[in-house]
Amino acid sequence: MPRKKGVAPGGEAGRTQHYRSDEIKKIVLSKLKKAGEEIVKAFNSGEWPTLYLPVRSTKNIVYDPSLRQYVLGPKRAERTVGNIRHLRPFAQLVWVSKFAKQLLTTGKTSTLRDTYYVAIGEGIDFESQDESDEVIMEVESLINQPREDMNIFPEERASIYGDLVIEYTIPGFRGQRIDLSAHPDGYAIGPALTTAEFARCGAEQVFVIEKGAVFSRFVEERADKKFKALLIHTAGQSPRNCRKLIRRLREELNLPVYIFTDADPYGVHIASVLIHGSALSAHIKEINVPDAVWSGVYATDITKYKLPAMRLTEQDFKRLKELEQDPRYTVDPWRREVQYFGKIKRKAELEAFSRYGLEFIVKDFLPERLAELQKR
Amino acid sequence: MPRKKGVAPGGEAGRTQHYRSDEIKKIVLSKLKKAGEEIVKAFNSGEWPTLYLPVRSTKNIVYDPSLRQYVLGPKRAERTVGNIRHLRPFAQLVWVSKFAKQLLTTGKTSTLRDTYYVAIGEGIDFESQDESDEVIMEVESLINQPREDMNIFPEERASIYGDLVIEYTIPGFRGQRIDLSAHPDGYAIGPALTTAEFARCGAEQVFVIEKGAVFSRFVEERADKKFKALLIHTAGQSPRNCRKLIRRLREELNLPVYIFTDADPYGVHIASVLIHGSALSAHIKEINVPDAVWSGVYATDITKYKLPAMRLTEQDFKRLKELEQDPRYTVDPWRREVQYFGKIKRKAELEAFSRYGLEFIVKDFLPERLAELQKR
Repeated sequence: MPRKKGVAPGGEAGRTQHYRSDEIKKIVLSKLKKAGEEIVKAFNSGEWPTLYLPVRSTKNIVYDPSLRQYVLGPKRAERTVGNIRHLRPFAQLVWVSKFAKQLLTTGKTSTLRDTYYVAIGEGIDFESQDESDEVIMEVESLINQPREDMNIFPEERASIYGDLVIEYTIPGFRGQRIDLSAHPDGYAIGPALTTAEFARCGAEQVFVIEKGAVFSRFVEERADKKFKALLIHTAGQSPRNCRKLIRRLREELNLPVYIFTDADPYGVHIASVLIHGSALSAHIKEINVPDAVWSGVYATDITKYKLPAMRLTEQDFKRLKELEQDPRYTVDPWRREVQYFGKIKRKAELEAFSRYGLEFIVKDFLPERLAELQKR
Repeated sequence: MPRKKGVAPGGEAGRTQHYRSDEIKKIVLSKLKKAGEEIVKAFNSGEWPTLYLPVRSTKNIVYDPSLRQYVLGPKRAERTVGNIRHLRPFAQLVWVSKFAKQLLTTGKTSTLRDTYYVAIGEGIDFESQDESDEVIMEVESLINQPREDMNIFPEERASIYGDLVIEYTIPGFRGQRIDLSAHPDGYAIGPALTTAEFARCGAEQVFVIEKGAVFSRFVEERADKKFKALLIHTAGQSPRNCRKLIRRLREELNLPVYIFTDADPYGVHIASVLIHGSALSAHIKEINVPDAVWSGVYATDITKYKLPAMRLTEQDFKRLKELEQDPRYTVDPWRREVQYFGKIKRKAELEAFSRYGLEFIVKDFLPERLAELQKR
């Protein structure tokens, strides 16, 4: 396990640095430009401009074992100005591309919702935000970059705490650094943190935690120090930019990632999406973390630790049935745990360890689980 | 408007400081001790221990115009060991009081859910978390202190950004300071920030914002600098500890507070609860901010600014009906706006200002609104 990586070398206050986010911006702008040029070229040579978009229906989604995530299959759909019914979505797509360019060149950010309202203001005829969200996803699939790379960020916020110094790359804060171990309630993972560089890291692993209360518990029991761990609170399902940040911690700093969720089908899904990717984001590559390890709470932990548990609901059983059909659940611990849920028909929360006192989860459960996982 | 208040004077790294949170802790412990002593005294003199709890039913909730919040009326209920049906809730209440004492003396924090699980572990017979939540509220009403003062914090997190330096009072961070203008994505308002002292403040007002996207917009457009404002993101309805923090900013630093919510009945309610208090927290005094000013988005702004708007739902209309009956809505702007919602039958979001471009809300709307409010 490497540590104390100096990722951003030299340069006073980093103002003249070349950041990874600058590279991404260049790539996105050049991809957008290329798409635009092809449209102009077609017009100039008297042809109908035509775009080829990957089909994002569930029928074209496959699990790619080499990338270890859900991806789109080879099906493409044609969108051409030559078809009068394509004109409207074609124009919408061109507008979103223009808006993305504008965000990147002015250094501003937006959200899905904001983008919809700006479109309305500019007289672009979206019937609802659903429609503009859809077109934003089309642009993502066209240029194969997530919307965050076009400065369109999620509303939801995950947060982070631990021994990591970041360097901002956004306007107004460019080159400034901040130590993420200074505020124990956590730092929101918004546009500034998402695009920051990792300047110095003293942590050796990452603990990803579904629940705010358990994040606080980990901070309070000094899990960050005892285990040299960065703590990330996803607040339920991880927002996409948080998944990407965790992937960067894995790839750039080589940190192992452990995921802690409730012992219920929803918690299993949170871990699974982070590791395998989601069907909904199958058109975006590399925002999942294939090497991350689902570390519990397992269904078998309910029995092993005699955790206070509740009955599974109808919806839980339905979800379990779906998981049983899923190729990713044919290996342990997934298979074993899904089967065990079916057997005991019960679920438990991360907080349930508090039945042994507030210290138990960090003092006893964590070292036991990490030791087990390292034996695998 | 006062500014640059030095609230925490002298003392190297503040380790020997006396903090407000230390005072609160002392008060809570002494109230808990007093309740316990009375129980013991009764036992010793051969009497049945009896507690008198304010009745928290809606029938005993009134709006207090002098305190300018919802409060409980004079009705008290007796809970006595002499009644066999009272024994169980009496014992539960004693356990919660003991747990609160334990949290305060060890410097640990908990949540409602964690408290339930600890109780289960110690063999306390709560049927569900609902029951333990209820008993925690009884202890709040018995000693007239919010559960946060007993170190029981909410799971939900609001966040804050701006020119304010805080000094932590929690174990492990005691006396350390942090500048809340260093991370533009925001600082989570968890146990550490809730109990912190305000060490230095360069801001002259507070903007409370319902939506994460609009919080980011305000940061990006430098509303914090242009208006010397602290920005607080409530993520919907403000968690109680966030309401209390805003009240402290008002009382301790004398900062005016402006609240920005969506133009819909739910947004109105978010503003109203922050200003007037909620029926659910009527047993807790002084976590509302009577002087805070609801600053829009108003229903009339939908027309005035030609905002993209959606139809009110059945549920919205039902809520409007309730607001019309409410004594707090007999004055403007509340009365005017509630009536106007009924008239136009439409609602709009804070983000709707983006129809005039991303800068509009901070560059145009904000100064216009603040000027209007200062004329009132």
